[in-house]
Parts: sequence; structure tokens; C-alpha cells
Amino acid sequence: MIHSMLNIKYPIIQAGMAGGPTTPELVAEVSEAGALGTLGAGYMAPQEIKMTLGNIRQLTQSPIAVNLFLPETPDMDKDATLAIQQLLNTYRKKLGIPEVHNIPDTENLFEKQLATVIEAGVKIVSFTFDAPSKRLVEKLHASEIIVIATATSVEEAIHLENIGVDLIVAQGAEAGGHRGSFLCGESESMIGTMALVPQVVDAVSCPVVAAGGIMDGRGMAAALTLGASAVQLGTAFLTVKESGANSIHKESILTSRDTDTKITKVFSGKSARGFKNKMMIDLESTLRDDVPPYPLQHILTSDIRKEAAKQKNKEMMSMWGGQASSLARESSAGELVRSLVNQCDAAFQKAPWR
Amino acid sequence: MIHSMLNIKYPIIQAGMAGGPTTPELVAEVSEAGALGTLGAGYMAPQEIKMTLGNIRQLTQSPIAVNLFLPETPDMDKDATLAIQQLLNTYRKKLGIPEVHNIPDTENLFEKQLATVIEAGVKIVSFTFDAPSKRLVEKLHASEIIVIATATSVEEAIHLENIGVDLIVAQGAEAGGHRGSFLCGESESMIGTMALVPQVVDAVSCPVVAAGGIMDGRGMAAALTLGASAVQLGTAFLTVKESGANSIHKESILTSRDTDTKITKVFSGKSARGFKNKMMIDLESTLRDDVPPYPLQHILTSDIRKEAAKQKNKEMMSMWGGQASSLARESSAGELVRSLVNQCDAAFQKAPWR
Repeated sequence: MIHSMLNIKYPIIQAGMAGGPTTPELVAEVSEAGALGTLGAGYMAPQEIKMTLGNIRQLTQSPIAVNLFLPETPDMDKDATLAIQQLLNTYRKKLGIPEVHNIPDTENLFEKQLATVIEAGVKIVSFTFDAPSKRLVEKLHASEIIVIATATSVEEAIHLENIGVDLIVAQGAEAGGHRGSFLCGESESMIGTMALVPQVVDAVSCPVVAAGGIMDGRGMAAALTLGASAVQLGTAFLTVKESGANSIHKESILTSRDTDTKITKVFSGKSARGFKNKMMIDLESTLRDDVPPYPLQHILTSDIRKEAAKQKNKEMMSMWGGQASSLARESSAGELVRSLVNQCDAAFQKAPWR
Repeated sequence: MIHSMLNIKYPIIQAGMAGGPTTPELVAEVSEAGALGTLGAGYMAPQEIKMTLGNIRQLTQSPIAVNLFLPETPDMDKDATLAIQQLLNTYRKKLGIPEVHNIPDTENLFEKQLATVIEAGVKIVSFTFDAPSKRLVEKLHASEIIVIATATSVEEAIHLENIGVDLIVAQGAEAGGHRGSFLCGESESMIGTMALVPQVVDAVSCPVVAAGGIMDGRGMAAALTLGASAVQLGTAFLTVKESGANSIHKESILTSRDTDTKITKVFSGKSARGFKNKMMIDLESTLRDDVPPYPLQHILTSDIRKEAAKQKNKEMMSMWGGQASSLARESSAGELVRSLVNQCDAAFQKAPWR
């Protein structure tokens, strides 16, 4: 069912990781291998989306998806924001980049991004961070676009089904990157994949995609036996040849341990799982509960994180990754898809009491 | 391999839940059905262990395990402890039970418990809360006893293998009841089952038992595809007919939602996952980081929790449960084992891209 819905051979979705990893080569190679490649376009200008989609189309005619961030307009306290700029200037000094003393612009590009995606003829759009409105889902359906959205609890999954979402990603607590919670509180939504997937599968009638801690064919087989119709992998695709992730980030994943990640809000204003480093730990102890909301904090810290990446200073970068990062391998994206399928097949062969 | 090691038909272990749920009927029925029943004897006096093992032996000749708590001698601040007694007296007043003004006795029964278990001829002993010493493992091996211990991270699993433990339970963050962490910090050890199991399987050579969020045959199949040799279920066995869990506790599990549980230290001094209630939330906000260590806090709060259970007041009970509690069913223990096996078999039948 999910195969015909998405027109893919294998029930594998490469997560739409924004900020660089999802190069045209990665997206195209994943889709060429029979899975679903996703362009993480959340931070992209409409013109950049248009160009990138064009580049992808030159590499593959297979289906691809685009992931977008729904607009948020945070409440902003001017004085508090300027105080955070001041705190962040200590990091800017260390990196030798200009201090910033003003309040950033938080204009949202969503409407223009979406228009570009529809115009480009993309037939699958996924959302994280928040639930789309019923109206938005209807608008996309009118353009014959399949809508994928993320839930971190049964309640969120039921909400998504009720507004007409076609495919629900059940994101377990293990997942790297941003949490997709939109109804649940932070801690409430930290439900492990093993617990979340069967409960969501029982609660909704649309197909469910399992995400969180899935890195290889064993995890894929596990998710499918839990009742998921497909799996979504982010971290596993970060270390492949075609990924645009920073080399320091790739290295951190490849040399990681299971206990190296943590959920934090300090980089973007939204909870996300990434590798612990000095900036994360220090900002958490200084800011505590006073982290400005997304996208404000994301914008406030982004010059620092970009420069740190350039300088290969991993103590000031946001390096997202899930709790099973240590299982990541270096290969091509196509090899990863094929190994997922083969290993999953093998895992299905053994029912140990026979 | 695990079948011959434990002499069981199906790779299913009923967790050794202390404090009442593991009646002789539950343990015996589980083992009779071809899985491994476990007596949760952590809080039992030696004489009670002896009697209960006798009762179990009248019901089954199949293998059973006994779960014990390793001794801990907490640092105790007298004044702080008395202040907590004072705070807890507000709960005692509400329940109409005598106030307590002294410092409780924390004498540990472990040596006597263990002697009783060995003398009774039990051939499988499991530990949670802490790692056994190498010497203790050797002592048990000298009595031809199989030793099972719990890890919540790869590092802990490697430690257990190094000291000679025969079987490692990899306990994911979803698990109900007490966390088995002993090397990792609290938050570090919150690794979801989907992420933890394959990483532990890759790191050790002894068989691994998956625990956390496994409630039915789907979860069992998932754990086995991840590379586990067996599964351990706690919450799922709490609601069966033979379980000695309080009826309020059973009801809370059967009517639960995925977001109803939380990790807390306030009931026992050790992190454990249970259903949120007023006492948990209030004590957390009052005590914050100043909860006395296990077993002190366990003893301090136990008269309150016992009386609340009698009065069917669920706001002052510690009701442990995992993140997939909503999948629990009322049945007999034997029916649960058979349904696990049948549903697991069915889950193995479907590799969805064929």
C-alpha cells in the first residue's frame, strides 16, 4: 500500500534533514536505489529550492519528497533577546567573527517555499516541528500531493489522521535532530520507538512510518514487525558519501557511543537530539528554561554554528544524531539502502525457537 | 542457545517485579507455559522466600528464576532524613496512619536471601539496581547458578560480560519500574530499546535479553530481529489473572495512555518509571534533587504507599509501568505467553516489499 502510495520499491524514507546534509546527490541516489529521498528544504530560500529540485531532477526521475518547516511566530522579549545576543557574543569573540547587537529578522518563507515546491511538481511533502492545518492538507491534496507529518505520541497521531494526513511518522525518543512534538509537552513526548510504534499503529488507520534509533536492517525489520509500513532514517544517511554533513559531524557520528547524545533546546529553541559539547552544556546551565523559542534562537546562534563548522570546532556546532549513531557506516547512499533491505530480509529469517 | 542455557521452550522472561506482583501462581504458570517465571524477592525476608519457593515448586517443576536486589548502604544525613519524615507525615495524616519521627533501619537482607535461594536449589538468579561483583558471580557459578544482570548502556553491558555474567538484560528507556543503571548517569542511561539492543548485541558475546516497551508478539519479534536472544516483560505480566498487583494498579495500566508514565526517584530513591500521580508530582517539586538514596527513601515512603494501596487511593501509590502499558490485556499468564509466541510468529511472516 505504501509502495503504491509513494511509488517506491522499498519502504525506506531518508529523513529530510535541513541545513546541508540532503544534497541533490544524496536525495537522488536514495530514490534511484528504490527508497524515498527527501530534500530538507526547511531553511532554504525559494530560489534555492527551485534550483536544487532542478539539480535532483537531472539525476533521477524517481519520486522524491520535500520537507518543510511550518511557520512559527514566536513571542519575543526585546530585552531578553538582546541579553542573549550579549551572551552569544562571547562565542563570537572566540571564533573571531563580528559581534551582533540587534534583534534578528524572523520573517518566514513558508508560503513562498510551498509555492515553489508545488510549482516544481513535487508529489510528496513532509512536515516536522508542527502539524499542518487541515486547510493546508486540503490545499496540498488539491495539487495531488501526498502529505507526511510527524507524531511523537498517540494523541498527536490521531490529530494528524483527523486532519487528513496521508502518512504518519511515529518519531521515537531515540531519534536524532528535532522532536516533532506539537501537542505533548517536552518530556511527555519522549516515548521510545519500541513503545510508540505499536500504540500508534493500533490508534490510526493510515500507514505509519517508524523513526528513531533505526540504523540498519535489524532496526528496519524490528519496525516492520511492530506494525510500521515503512521506516525513516536520518542519522544513518548523514555519514554516507553523498551526504553534505560537515566532516566533523560525520566523524562524531562514526566514533560515537550510545550515551553521547542529549535532547537540548539551546541551539534552535526547539528540542532536538544532538551530540553533547561545550556550547550545549554551558548554554543549558546559563539559560536554563529561558531559551528563546524557535526560530529566534536558531537565528541567534546560526552564525556561530556555521563559523564553528568552518573552523572544525566541534564544541560550538550543533551536531544532530540519534541514540544509535554508533551503528552508522561510511558507504554510498545506494549501498546503505541495499544493505538495509538485505539485512532486514535476513532478520526476518530467524524465529529462534524453531 | 538461550533455550538450553535456561532450559525453556520460548525465549520469554517474566521480569522479577518485587513487592507483590510475582505470586507463586504467576511464576509457576509462566514457567509451565514454556517461558521463564521469576520471583521478585528483593523485598522479601529469607523465611518468606523459602516458603514462596516451596509454594512455586508445588505448582511447577519447570525452571524458575529469583530476582534479588544487591545491597546498598546509603550515606544518610540524619537531620535531612528527619525533615523528610516530617514532610511525609502530611501524607500519613491524610491517610489516617500514625506519624513517624525516627530514622528507619536500613539493614540489608541480601546475604541471607541469597543463602536461602541457593539452598532451595534455584538455578537462575537475576539482579537489577546494580552489577554483582565478580566474586559474587563466581560464587553463584560454583553452585551451578546462571547469573542474569541488567545493563542500560553499552558500557554497562561490557562491564557485566567482563565479570562473567551469563545473560545480559538490555533495559531500554521505555521500561517500567526501576532503572538498572549502575555506571551511567541518570539521563545518560535513557537509551530507547530500539537503539540500545543492537548496540549491546554488537558489543558483547553473551546472549542479550531485550527489555523495555515490549508488550506483545510484535514487540517480541522486533526485539529478536534486533539481535536479542530473548525478551523480558514486566508490565505485560502485571495485568494477568495470576499477578498479585493491586487492582488499582492493574486498572491504571489497562486504561493508560502512552504519555502517562514518568521517571521518578521520589518513591524509592532510585529512578523508576511509573504512572504520574499527585504524590509523585508534589514530592518532585518539593524535594527536587534532595531525595534520599535507595533504600532509605523506599523505606521512608513504604508505609504510605502500602496504606494508600489498601485505601485504593492511587494518588499516593507507586504504580510502576512502562511506556507501552496501554497494550496490556487481561488474560491468564499462560495465555499471554501463548499469544506472545503466536503473534511473534505472525509478525515474522511479513516482509512487506514482497
